[in-house]
Amino acid sequence: MQQTATDWTLEEKKVAEEAFERAYTREIEALISEVRTKSGLINEVKDLWKLHDFLSARRHEIDGKYDYDYSSLLFTFAELVRDEWLHLDELRSLSKEKISKIVALTKI
Amino acid sequence: MQQTATDWTLEEKKVAEEAFERAYTREIEALISEVRTKSGLINEVKDLWKLHDFLSARRHEIDGKYDYDYSSLLFTFAELVRDEWLHLDELRSLSKEKISKIVALTKI
Repeated sequence: MQQTATDWTLEEKKVAEEAFERAYTREIEALISEVRTKSGLINEVKDLWKLHDFLSARRHEIDGKYDYDYSSLLFTFAELVRDEWLHLDELRSLSKEKISKIVALTKI
Repeated sequence: MQQTATDWTLEEKKVAEEAFERAYTREIEALISEVRTKSGLINEVKDLWKLHDFLSARRHEIDGKYDYDYSSLLFTFAELVRDEWLHLDELRSLSKEKISKIVALTKI
């Protein structure tokens, strides 16, 4: 299942980079919106620290997830599709084999 | 300079607890307002993580500062007066000796 950069054609790399960037932008925009909403609802100190804990967890998760590495890219795409940051359609220019692997991984 | 609980009369303890609580409430209210403003200005991911860093630093500072301990209370009050979370007037029922120490500490 593990891949290297040479398993990806130039065209696939372009599609992958764009899809990756698009998912990142979507997730960050959703997070900004969520942080604004949460901030508007802060009434007391425990809400402040809850927002801090939330940001700590999301930052850690996002930093780990958006690591553009061909050896883990199929896993990353599966996670992004499962979490609806990316549609399978946006990856349709990848090889059938890669798409099948991504689909299989979304079901794990 | 270091004091213990027995150096404080019951009346002084009451005044100190109220002043401490008032300063804490003021600082937290100001922080909530600042976080709301900062959240409204978030446009991109670096603003999100700047808010996270800001909350990490303020939480650490506030957790350390608001430790109600008679051995460090004069230092804490001096810091709160210097940072304008507390007015010296609000401590006027403390002994003259304590007030003088607090005033001296605010100048360090």
